[in-house]
Amino acid sequence: MVSYPKSGGPIRRTIPEGDNLERLVCDACGYIHYDNPKIVVGAVAESLGRILLCRRAIEPRKGYWTIPAGYLELNESPEEGALREAREEANAALRLTGLLAVYNVTRISQVQLIYRAALVSEDVSAGEESEEVGLFATEDIPWRDLAFPSVRWALNHFSEAKDINIFSPFGNPIGETGNFDPKSTTGV
Amino acid sequence: MVSYPKSGGPIRRTIPEGDNLERLVCDACGYIHYDNPKIVVGAVAESLGRILLCRRAIEPRKGYWTIPAGYLELNESPEEGALREAREEANAALRLTGLLAVYNVTRISQVQLIYRAALVSEDVSAGEESEEVGLFATEDIPWRDLAFPSVRWALNHFSEAKDINIFSPFGNPIGETGNFDPKSTTGV
Repeated sequence: MVSYPKSGGPIRRTIPEGDNLERLVCDACGYIHYDNPKIVVGAVAESLGRILLCRRAIEPRKGYWTIPAGYLELNESPEEGALREAREEANAALRLTGLLAVYNVTRISQVQLIYRAALVSEDVSAGEESEEVGLFATEDIPWRDLAFPSVRWALNHFSEAKDINIFSPFGNPIGETGNFDPKSTTGV
Repeated sequence: MVSYPKSGGPIRRTIPEGDNLERLVCDACGYIHYDNPKIVVGAVAESLGRILLCRRAIEPRKGYWTIPAGYLELNESPEEGALREAREEANAALRLTGLLAVYNVTRISQVQLIYRAALVSEDVSAGEESEEVGLFATEDIPWRDLAFPSVRWALNHFSEAKDINIFSPFGNPIGETGNFDPKSTTGV
């Protein structure tokens, strides 16, 4: 979400601040853009045992399946963000029923807050960022065509907590970093 | 954490993108800095029934008490960040024992992940950002001199969950936005 002007503008380079991180620095004015970790919010939403998934219409991982999720916006609570993403990507109305998981993908500085949810109605349809949406029984989930490792984690953790009302949110499965191998055919 | 050059540089103004939000725009090069919500990580850390608090040596709320907490850094997991903040602000070694709460202060686009923790040792001391640190029994907590509303929330939620092993993380108390009244003498 960076807008580049016709000339000049920010370039990413290392500046001497002792931590060796790369920063966006504007060559025209010297402005330093301090990057921060980003928050992704999303939901595993169920109706009568079936889970809502969206096939991505945009990169990265266009054509692969995901739960509705995306970047939290300014002045938005995580819960509001999760509901918005479901509305935008699947025209779906959800009722959140708890925080399922807090995942992190430190390589790309991403913290994911994934809720579980009940679909208020099965009347769902593809939003602008989705090629199609569907409701999947566990055995029908397209496991080999999931967009990101954390989608798999969230679906597994949802199953694990299915009959439990109160639990501590899950974290990354042991040893998993969320890094995604773009050469992988399954993505997970 | 924005560095302003001697001349030119970013100013905050509203640009026409349909959402009426203010953005940082560089007058020299036209670069638009899309701001994102920020993640604060922290911990309520206990040793033998007493809670670790730090008196802030920096603004905002210099001189008031807080739990060790601060902004999550790039390429850091929330758990790593909470441990780092305790080390930096109180020279304290913690063992995290669960996610206590997810708070949000939407006015300033902040999501707070607060853990509960056991102090590995009572050997703590003020770091650079603290004037002093201390271990407080519940009845001795300086309730009127807490730095932020969410510090009070976290201390109360910690007490509430004291004897519970497994629980869903708390959220904002009902009706509380985390907005802080600078005219208040108690801050909370």
